[in-house]
Amino acid sequence: MMIAQTPPPPYYAVIFTSLRTPVEDGYKDTATLMMTLAQTQPGYLGVESAREGVGITVSYWESLEAIRHWKQQADHLIAQQMGREKWYAQYKTRICLVERDYGFDKE
Amino acid sequence: MMIAQTPPPPYYAVIFTSLRTPVEDGYKDTATLMMTLAQTQPGYLGVESAREGVGITVSYWESLEAIRHWKQQADHLIAQQMGREKWYAQYKTRICLVERDYGFDKE
Repeated sequence: MMIAQTPPPPYYAVIFTSLRTPVEDGYKDTATLMMTLAQTQPGYLGVESAREGVGITVSYWESLEAIRHWKQQADHLIAQQMGREKWYAQYKTRICLVERDYGFDKE
Repeated sequence: MMIAQTPPPPYYAVIFTSLRTPVEDGYKDTATLMMTLAQTQPGYLGVESAREGVGITVSYWESLEAIRHWKQQADHLIAQQMGREKWYAQYKTRICLVERDYGFDKE
Protein backbone atom coordinates (compact mmCIF):
# COMPACT_ATOMS: atom_id res chain seq x y z
CA MET A 1 0.00 0.00 0.00
CA MET A 2 1.41 3.36 -1.06
CA ILE A 3 0.28 6.95 -0.76
CA ALA A 4 -2.21 7.53 -3.59
CA GLN A 5 -0.89 9.59 -6.52
CA THR A 6 -3.79 11.95 -7.06
CA PRO A 7 -4.06 14.86 -9.54
CA PRO A 8 -4.14 18.50 -8.40
CA PRO A 9 -7.35 19.40 -6.48
CA PRO A 10 -10.24 19.71 -6.65
CA TYR A 11 -11.22 16.02 -6.57
CA TYR A 12 -13.30 13.91 -4.20
CA ALA A 13 -12.46 11.59 -1.30
CA VAL A 14 -14.66 8.95 0.33
CA ILE A 15 -13.51 8.26 3.90
CA PHE A 16 -14.87 4.89 5.04
CA THR A 17 -14.16 4.23 8.74
CA SER A 18 -15.25 0.89 10.18
CA LEU A 19 -15.21 -1.43 13.16
CA ARG A 20 -15.29 -5.14 12.32
CA THR A 21 -17.30 -7.95 13.89
CA PRO A 22 -15.30 -11.11 14.73
CA VAL A 23 -16.81 -12.78 11.63
CA GLU A 24 -14.28 -13.59 8.87
CA ASP A 25 -16.39 -15.61 6.36
CA GLY A 26 -15.04 -14.24 3.08
CA TYR A 27 -14.23 -10.75 4.35
CA LYS A 28 -10.64 -10.61 3.14
CA ASP A 29 -11.34 -12.02 -0.32
CA THR A 30 -14.26 -9.65 -0.80
CA ALA A 31 -12.24 -6.65 0.43
CA THR A 32 -9.45 -7.50 -2.05
CA LEU A 33 -11.97 -8.05 -4.85
CA MET A 34 -13.69 -4.70 -4.16
CA MET A 35 -10.31 -2.91 -4.11
CA THR A 36 -9.48 -4.44 -7.52
CA LEU A 37 -12.94 -3.73 -8.92
CA ALA A 38 -12.87 -0.10 -7.72
CA GLN A 39 -9.73 0.48 -9.81
CA THR A 40 -11.63 -0.37 -12.99
CA GLN A 41 -14.44 2.13 -12.31
CA PRO A 42 -14.80 5.39 -14.24
CA GLY A 43 -13.39 8.35 -12.36
CA TYR A 44 -11.29 6.28 -9.92
CA LEU A 45 -8.13 8.10 -8.82
CA GLY A 46 -6.63 5.95 -6.06
CA VAL A 47 -7.07 4.35 -2.63
CA GLU A 48 -5.34 4.22 0.75
CA SER A 49 -6.26 1.71 3.45
CA ALA A 50 -5.11 0.66 6.93
CA ARG A 51 -6.68 -1.23 9.82
CA GLU A 52 -5.40 -0.99 13.38
CA GLY A 53 -8.43 -1.53 15.60
CA VAL A 54 -10.40 0.90 13.48
CA GLY A 55 -10.22 0.48 9.70
CA ILE A 56 -9.82 3.52 7.47
CA THR A 57 -10.16 3.27 3.69
CA VAL A 58 -9.96 6.47 1.69
CA SER A 59 -10.81 6.24 -2.00
CA TYR A 60 -10.31 9.16 -4.38
CA TRP A 61 -12.61 10.05 -7.28
CA GLU A 62 -12.91 12.61 -10.06
CA SER A 63 -16.52 13.56 -9.30
CA LEU A 64 -19.63 12.90 -7.21
CA GLU A 65 -21.05 11.14 -10.26
CA ALA A 66 -18.15 8.65 -10.18
CA ILE A 67 -18.79 8.03 -6.45
CA ARG A 68 -22.52 7.46 -7.06
CA HIS A 69 -21.74 5.07 -9.90
CA TRP A 70 -19.36 3.00 -7.74
CA LYS A 71 -21.83 2.94 -4.83
CA GLN A 72 -24.47 1.45 -7.18
CA GLN A 73 -22.17 -1.03 -8.96
CA ALA A 74 -23.85 -4.46 -8.77
CA ASP A 75 -21.10 -6.53 -7.11
CA HIS A 76 -20.34 -3.66 -4.78
CA LEU A 77 -24.01 -3.49 -3.70
CA ILE A 78 -23.87 -7.18 -2.74
CA ALA A 79 -20.62 -6.61 -0.81
CA GLN A 80 -22.19 -3.64 1.03
CA GLN A 81 -25.15 -5.83 2.00
CA MET A 82 -22.86 -8.63 3.28
CA GLY A 83 -20.84 -5.99 5.13
CA ARG A 84 -23.90 -4.91 7.10
CA GLU A 85 -25.05 -8.48 7.71
CA LYS A 86 -21.73 -10.03 8.71
CA TRP A 87 -18.51 -8.03 8.78
CA TYR A 88 -19.12 -4.58 10.21
CA ALA A 89 -20.25 -3.73 13.73
CA GLN A 90 -20.25 -0.06 12.81
CA TYR A 91 -19.17 2.18 9.96
CA LYS A 92 -19.28 5.76 8.78
CA THR A 93 -18.88 7.03 5.22
CA ARG A 94 -17.92 10.63 4.57
CA ILE A 95 -18.08 12.22 1.10
CA CYS A 96 -15.54 15.03 0.85
CA LEU A 97 -14.34 17.62 -1.63
CA VAL A 98 -10.53 17.77 -1.50
CA GLU A 99 -9.83 21.49 -1.77
CA ARG A 100 -6.08 21.53 -1.23
CA ASP A 101 -3.20 19.10 -0.78
CA TYR A 102 0.54 19.20 -0.20
CA GLY A 103 3.18 16.63 0.45
CA PHE A 104 6.69 15.77 1.47
CA ASP A 105 9.13 13.27 0.03
CA LYS A 106 12.53 12.66 1.62
CA GLU A 107 14.06 11.68 -1.74
CA MET B 1 -9.68 4.17 18.73
CA MET B 2 -13.34 4.63 17.79
CA ILE B 3 -15.18 6.10 14.83
CA ALA B 4 -15.23 9.87 15.39
CA GLN B 5 -18.59 11.29 16.49
CA THR B 6 -18.83 14.30 14.20
CA PRO B 7 -21.72 16.79 13.86
CA PRO B 8 -23.88 16.97 10.72
CA PRO B 9 -21.95 18.26 7.65
CA PRO B 10 -20.57 20.55 6.47
CA TYR B 11 -17.32 20.34 8.42
CA TYR B 12 -13.69 19.81 7.44
CA ALA B 13 -11.39 16.76 7.36
CA VAL B 14 -7.60 16.66 7.15
CA ILE B 15 -6.40 13.36 5.67
CA PHE B 16 -2.74 12.82 6.59
CA THR B 17 -1.27 9.74 4.86
CA SER B 18 2.33 8.80 5.65
CA LEU B 19 5.10 6.30 5.19
CA ARG B 20 7.53 6.02 8.12
CA THR B 21 11.31 5.81 8.14
CA PRO B 22 12.77 3.05 10.38
CA VAL B 23 13.67 5.78 12.96
CA GLU B 24 11.76 5.54 16.26
CA ASP B 25 13.49 8.22 18.44
CA GLY B 26 10.47 9.71 20.20
CA TYR B 27 7.95 9.11 17.44
CA LYS B 28 5.32 7.32 19.51
CA ASP B 29 5.44 9.75 22.43
CA THR B 30 5.22 12.73 20.09
CA ALA B 31 2.35 11.18 18.12
CA THR B 32 0.42 10.56 21.35
CA LEU B 33 1.19 14.08 22.59
CA MET B 34 0.02 15.65 19.32
CA MET B 35 -3.20 13.60 19.42
CA THR B 36 -3.85 14.85 22.98
CA LEU B 37 -2.92 18.42 22.12
CA ALA B 38 -5.13 18.45 19.02
CA GLN B 39 -8.14 17.67 21.21
CA THR B 40 -7.65 20.92 23.14
CA GLN B 41 -7.57 23.11 20.00
CA PRO B 42 -10.47 25.39 19.03
CA GLY B 43 -12.72 23.84 16.41
CA TYR B 44 -11.49 20.26 16.94
CA LEU B 45 -14.22 17.67 16.22
CA GLY B 46 -12.46 14.29 16.38
CA VAL B 47 -9.77 12.02 14.98
CA GLU B 48 -9.39 8.54 13.49
CA SER B 49 -6.02 6.87 12.97
CA ALA B 50 -4.59 3.53 11.81
CA ARG B 51 -1.23 2.35 10.53
CA GLU B 52 -0.78 -0.85 8.51
CA GLY B 53 2.20 -0.23 6.26
CA VAL B 54 0.77 3.16 5.32
CA GLY B 55 -0.47 5.37 8.16
CA ILE B 56 -3.75 7.26 7.80
CA THR B 57 -4.81 9.89 10.33
CA VAL B 58 -8.00 11.81 9.65
CA SER B 59 -8.74 14.76 11.93
CA TYR B 60 -12.04 16.63 11.78
CA TRP B 61 -12.47 20.38 12.26
CA GLU B 62 -15.20 23.01 12.29
CA SER B 63 -13.52 25.35 9.81
CA LEU B 64 -10.45 26.10 7.67
CA GLU B 65 -9.52 28.69 10.30
CA ALA B 66 -9.35 25.94 12.97
CA ILE B 67 -7.13 23.83 10.66
CA ARG B 68 -4.79 26.80 10.01
CA HIS B 69 -4.58 27.51 13.74
CA TRP B 70 -3.64 23.90 14.55
CA LYS B 71 -1.07 23.79 11.73
CA GLN B 72 0.65 26.87 13.24
CA GLN B 73 0.45 25.77 16.90
CA ALA B 74 3.98 26.06 18.36
CA ASP B 75 4.52 22.49 19.64
CA HIS B 76 2.88 21.12 16.52
CA LEU B 77 5.28 23.13 14.31
CA ILE B 78 8.24 21.51 16.12
CA ALA B 79 6.68 18.06 15.71
CA GLN B 80 6.14 18.70 11.99
CA GLN B 81 9.80 19.70 11.64
CA MET B 82 10.98 16.56 13.47
CA GLY B 83 8.61 14.51 11.33
CA ARG B 84 10.33 15.70 8.15
CA GLU B 85 13.83 15.29 9.62
CA LYS B 86 13.40 11.87 11.23
CA TRP B 87 10.14 9.97 11.12
CA TYR B 88 8.54 10.30 7.70
CA ALA B 89 9.91 9.05 4.40
CA GLN B 90 6.89 10.50 2.63
CA TYR B 91 3.55 12.09 3.47
CA LYS B 92 0.59 13.77 1.89
CA THR B 93 -1.91 16.10 3.57
CA ARG B 94 -5.32 16.69 2.03
CA ILE B 95 -7.69 19.41 3.23
CA CYS B 96 -11.28 18.41 2.54
CA LEU B 97 -14.78 19.76 2.94
CA VAL B 98 -17.04 16.96 4.21
CA GLU B 99 -20.23 17.51 2.24
CA ARG B 100 -22.24 14.46 3.29
CA ASP B 101 -21.95 11.50 5.65
CA TYR B 102 -23.95 8.46 6.62
CA GLY B 103 -23.37 5.50 8.87
CA PHE B 104 -24.39 2.08 10.07
CA ASP B 105 -24.54 0.65 13.58
CA LYS B 106 -25.46 -2.97 14.20
CA GLU B 107 -26.95 -2.13 17.63
